[in-house]
Amino acid sequence: MNINLNKLCANTVRTLAMDMVQQADSGHPGMPMGMADVATVLWTRFLKHNPGDPTWPDRDRFVLSAGHGSALLYALLHLTGYDLPLEELKRFRQWGSHTPGHPEVGLTPGVETTTGPLGQGFANGVGMAMAERFLAATFNRPGFPLFDHTTYAIVSDGDLMEGISHEAASLAGHLGLGKLVYLYDDNGISIEGSTDVTFTEDVPARFRAYGWHVQEIDGHAIDQIDAAIRAAQAERERPSLVVCHTHIAYGSPNKQDSADAHGAPLGEDEMRRTKEALGWPAEAAFYVPPEVQAAFRRAVDAGAAAQAAWQALLEQYATAYPEQAALLGTILAGDLPAGWDERLPTFAPGDGPMATRKASGKVLNAIAPALPMLFGGSADLAPSNNTWLNGCDAFQKETPTGRNVHFGVREHAMGAILNGMALHGGLIPFGGTFLVFSDYMRPAVRLAALSHLPVVYVWTHDAVWIGEDGPTHQPVEHLAALRAIPNLTVIRPCDANETAAAWQVALERRDGPTALILTRQSLPVLDREVVAGAEGLASGAYVLRDAPGGTPELILIASGSEVHTALAAQEHLAEQGIQARVVSMPSWELFEAQPRSYIESVLPSQVTARVAVEAGVAQGWARYVGPAGDVVSIDRFGASAPYKVLVEQFGFTVADVVQRARALV
Amino acid sequence: MNINLNKLCANTVRTLAMDMVQQADSGHPGMPMGMADVATVLWTRFLKHNPGDPTWPDRDRFVLSAGHGSALLYALLHLTGYDLPLEELKRFRQWGSHTPGHPEVGLTPGVETTTGPLGQGFANGVGMAMAERFLAATFNRPGFPLFDHTTYAIVSDGDLMEGISHEAASLAGHLGLGKLVYLYDDNGISIEGSTDVTFTEDVPARFRAYGWHVQEIDGHAIDQIDAAIRAAQAERERPSLVVCHTHIAYGSPNKQDSADAHGAPLGEDEMRRTKEALGWPAEAAFYVPPEVQAAFRRAVDAGAAAQAAWQALLEQYATAYPEQAALLGTILAGDLPAGWDERLPTFAPGDGPMATRKASGKVLNAIAPALPMLFGGSADLAPSNNTWLNGCDAFQKETPTGRNVHFGVREHAMGAILNGMALHGGLIPFGGTFLVFSDYMRPAVRLAALSHLPVVYVWTHDAVWIGEDGPTHQPVEHLAALRAIPNLTVIRPCDANETAAAWQVALERRDGPTALILTRQSLPVLDREVVAGAEGLASGAYVLRDAPGGTPELILIASGSEVHTALAAQEHLAEQGIQARVVSMPSWELFEAQPRSYIESVLPSQVTARVAVEAGVAQGWARYVGPAGDVVSIDRFGASAPYKVLVEQFGFTVADVVQRARALV
Repeated sequence: MNINLNKLCANTVRTLAMDMVQQADSGHPGMPMGMADVATVLWTRFLKHNPGDPTWPDRDRFVLSAGHGSALLYALLHLTGYDLPLEELKRFRQWGSHTPGHPEVGLTPGVETTTGPLGQGFANGVGMAMAERFLAATFNRPGFPLFDHTTYAIVSDGDLMEGISHEAASLAGHLGLGKLVYLYDDNGISIEGSTDVTFTEDVPARFRAYGWHVQEIDGHAIDQIDAAIRAAQAERERPSLVVCHTHIAYGSPNKQDSADAHGAPLGEDEMRRTKEALGWPAEAAFYVPPEVQAAFRRAVDAGAAAQAAWQALLEQYATAYPEQAALLGTILAGDLPAGWDERLPTFAPGDGPMATRKASGKVLNAIAPALPMLFGGSADLAPSNNTWLNGCDAFQKETPTGRNVHFGVREHAMGAILNGMALHGGLIPFGGTFLVFSDYMRPAVRLAALSHLPVVYVWTHDAVWIGEDGPTHQPVEHLAALRAIPNLTVIRPCDANETAAAWQVALERRDGPTALILTRQSLPVLDREVVAGAEGLASGAYVLRDAPGGTPELILIASGSEVHTALAAQEHLAEQGIQARVVSMPSWELFEAQPRSYIESVLPSQVTARVAVEAGVAQGWARYVGPAGDVVSIDRFGASAPYKVLVEQFGFTVADVVQRARALV
Repeated sequence: MNINLNKLCANTVRTLAMDMVQQADSGHPGMPMGMADVATVLWTRFLKHNPGDPTWPDRDRFVLSAGHGSALLYALLHLTGYDLPLEELKRFRQWGSHTPGHPEVGLTPGVETTTGPLGQGFANGVGMAMAERFLAATFNRPGFPLFDHTTYAIVSDGDLMEGISHEAASLAGHLGLGKLVYLYDDNGISIEGSTDVTFTEDVPARFRAYGWHVQEIDGHAIDQIDAAIRAAQAERERPSLVVCHTHIAYGSPNKQDSADAHGAPLGEDEMRRTKEALGWPAEAAFYVPPEVQAAFRRAVDAGAAAQAAWQALLEQYATAYPEQAALLGTILAGDLPAGWDERLPTFAPGDGPMATRKASGKVLNAIAPALPMLFGGSADLAPSNNTWLNGCDAFQKETPTGRNVHFGVREHAMGAILNGMALHGGLIPFGGTFLVFSDYMRPAVRLAALSHLPVVYVWTHDAVWIGEDGPTHQPVEHLAALRAIPNLTVIRPCDANETAAAWQVALERRDGPTALILTRQSLPVLDREVVAGAEGLASGAYVLRDAPGGTPELILIASGSEVHTALAAQEHLAEQGIQARVVSMPSWELFEAQPRSYIESVLPSQVTARVAVEAGVAQGWARYVGPAGDVVSIDRFGASAPYKVLVEQFGFTVADVVQRARALV
């Protein structure tokens, strides 16, 4: 493509973005106008993709980390021939459209990830590149480069100010992710004005310190953009940052280089003036010159041909490596290999006492050989989270088939990298830290839930019972805070067998993330000959041990370690002539998904004397215990002391629960 | 102090830390042993402090960002003569002791901040140094350097891996905080082993890129430590990072340089061997050689003398600058100047409609002249959060009396910097961002609540009603998630006058943080001649407009923008013969703090037909509406569309509320 046509293409992207924002009377025109040249060069000269099949596994990934520039992406998707007609561009930011305010994966063909909260896309891309490297190392064979694609992103000042960009960039540099190419929109403007008011670090030096390959260019000079992307592709040992000096709202006579153009429409007058300045028909809206249309649409045939060639390669691969090909088919479909769950261990009382984090480690190691797509690690707490896969390497530059990731003390990036891996496909990602530090990764967890990503969190040290480390490390509000997130399934198993069942639920869930909430301290392995089977966990709550005859006058409801307290209390109450039922309730979300009849069978309406026991804030339990019930909870921060002292001090002894229960009947 | 005595002092710190951890059978010996030399040089040769008065305003601040090394800090506090007797060291990590697992401010004299969650202390220190600079610029006069102290911190690999360290370091470099001196414990070990497995960035180059002054030394060479701190002090234009190459568990024959020594006692045998290697009496525990005792205790007299000299200076200052001195007295006492609240504006219906974020901006600007300690800003959203103080400068290197901070897109650091300012004293810090991005700062918010810090959050764009920006920017779970945090007061005012009342509550609160939850969209200013006065906000919930005669058959409870919907529904219901009460409930925490009788008067038990209306998840509302009630809520993520379309789609029209209410009566 010659430079003039390239400029024309870029101006089409620019004017479409202006038109979209103006039509919606809402949105961010400045960034798309500033990055139109860079994006157009990337999309017309480099990006390997097939608009006809946005799921092609070996496509390049394009992440718009600066998600507020969504109009840029929608223009490119429309122009290159994705299933996003011009009518959708005209319905920008409207109810039910495929062009929401910020890109949402799953809603719009060709959108690779949900972005907008700054820094998330930056880290998603690192996860995608890690997935590509692992899959390439695992499946590629001489002559069969089945996985050989690049992850591109457009990142903004805001992305680079966010701490998550530091975490992700440092890890990407460490891993030497040479197929990561980030285009930094260095426009010098953020919402409060010039970035000089707060952001004066030397970004190129910073990224070099991370081990990145850094270039600086004029982001409106087509030849410089072309050369920089070419050089970035050629660099295979280091991730690349191309610092693109651009003008926000490029082309606007009065709003270029101004914060005014960041998040508001240009206005009719300024839009007309801008179109004139760009040599555009001033009155035309959503205008695409025919030669531009033709130029962009080449992507359709080129993409189809590229994917066909890849498909042919895959077929040859299937002949040469039938086992690998079969496994690859399963993995890419997002399926679990048949019979994987036969490896799920069963625990007997004699195996315990055992912390549920330890049980989780045993489960993980039992199933890992059958699940070669299980890939993850911990934020520097693997020995505590029990997340290490024995017999597997660490995932390092030199050992790219390793399945154990040393995320480092980078919880937030870990969360967003897990999202990137899930978005890439081919992996079931998991990541661990202490439950209290789920706060550090919360923005990424929210996006996993919003984006329906099957990610598994291994959050251990789940209550004040961690003891001596004290309140900074003791979660109290976290169960409530996590349960508040829509589409996140939170599971707090009570023993080793419930832990195995929880892993099964987590791995079989394909439409959202699952949090496993696990103890530091040892717990007995319940005798399932005496109490109900752990498969009840899948229903969220179940009658673990009923009152004799099944007619309780009281229900004790508990999760995790407190289930054992409830069982002991049940016995004491029975000695005092009070017939109680114990309900193990590891997951509110799973329980709420059951039919009303099941819920009623577990928690019969007529039994209003109910005590919930959970080592955290009471918030939300009123729903299950009702106004006649009680909640044994911890509605304050914890304290540093040995575990058993805390049980006494916080009123969680069996005697305490018995007393609270007796008060109700 | 000569080098031999310095080494002996350091070994005392080392062995005390070992003894503490061993006695508790829990804790982290490795870091204190590794950093004992550096810390001892700092505390015996440089730190300006008065063990007899840990509140002296002009003391240097010492932050142990690597809070797991708490034993190091407790040893230093004990040895230099703080009110922390040896008995407390022997009760390390026990219930009720002053030596908890991680340092907790307020619990232990001389502990400046609560640390443990990595990266927080790093950013707290930046806030302290900003406070020092502002107060110095505002109050110092020629010959009266009332504020002239340095903020020191010990930071670890983990701190520097965390994203918050990037955000805070970038801002500190931008501001040129020359009185910030950070000592980096570069021991090459974290929990998963060598830091080489994940942390290979060039830290000195990274910090130089932020504009820091960087030195590298042997962290066990007393003369190098001394020289580096001296050079760091001499550098007044840039923050300093001293990279101290150290050996974790220095002195332990078998555990030095090993991850084993990070988080577990050395064990009796290894402890004995280590003491032998250090030339220590192997059987003695908690042993302090007399010459060490004498050397450290010099801090008592030196500190008392230094503070006395400062006090004398302050008295001269009071003569020379009586007004400034009086103001300073008020500020340092944490009091609000008398009569400040007379400036709180009152709004009339004719002033509206007005978004509560706009009302907040008006309130802030009305009171700011009377509250010169009000200091804060936004994470690059000042024009949206309405946090800018008109007529005040930005807080910049060149304008250090400015009260408007450009935090940049650095929500997490902003949260921890606000904590640092509050900890420093002399300021009432506030910070703004969108409510949905409170997630980014959550770990810092938790620590503000745990540490009882009077910080004010201005979280705007409080519901899906932001409209077109879509679900990434629309909070739904955030009210529930924030209410779950103990000691955080969450207030969601319904109009401009409730917003003014909310600011008053927030500023008068001295024992914890307050979150103001504010709308993007305009709301009517309620006619307080017709409905109850906005002073009811201070009680958390109040009867805004009662049923005629005060005998409702139904109660509508709402917060924020939904209060207006409830009021309209009340009128429609009245037309249909249903007498409803409308309760405005801006704050659960304030309401729960009221006497039972007040709670009963607002929500009489006999009225069981209750509808809560709030644009967020229902979690927790069951407590107020009971099993016979209903909650008009949004238990899913939002969507990108104009605000009024969303009101229809999510069932929040007046007709929807009327229908839901009618179903109950």
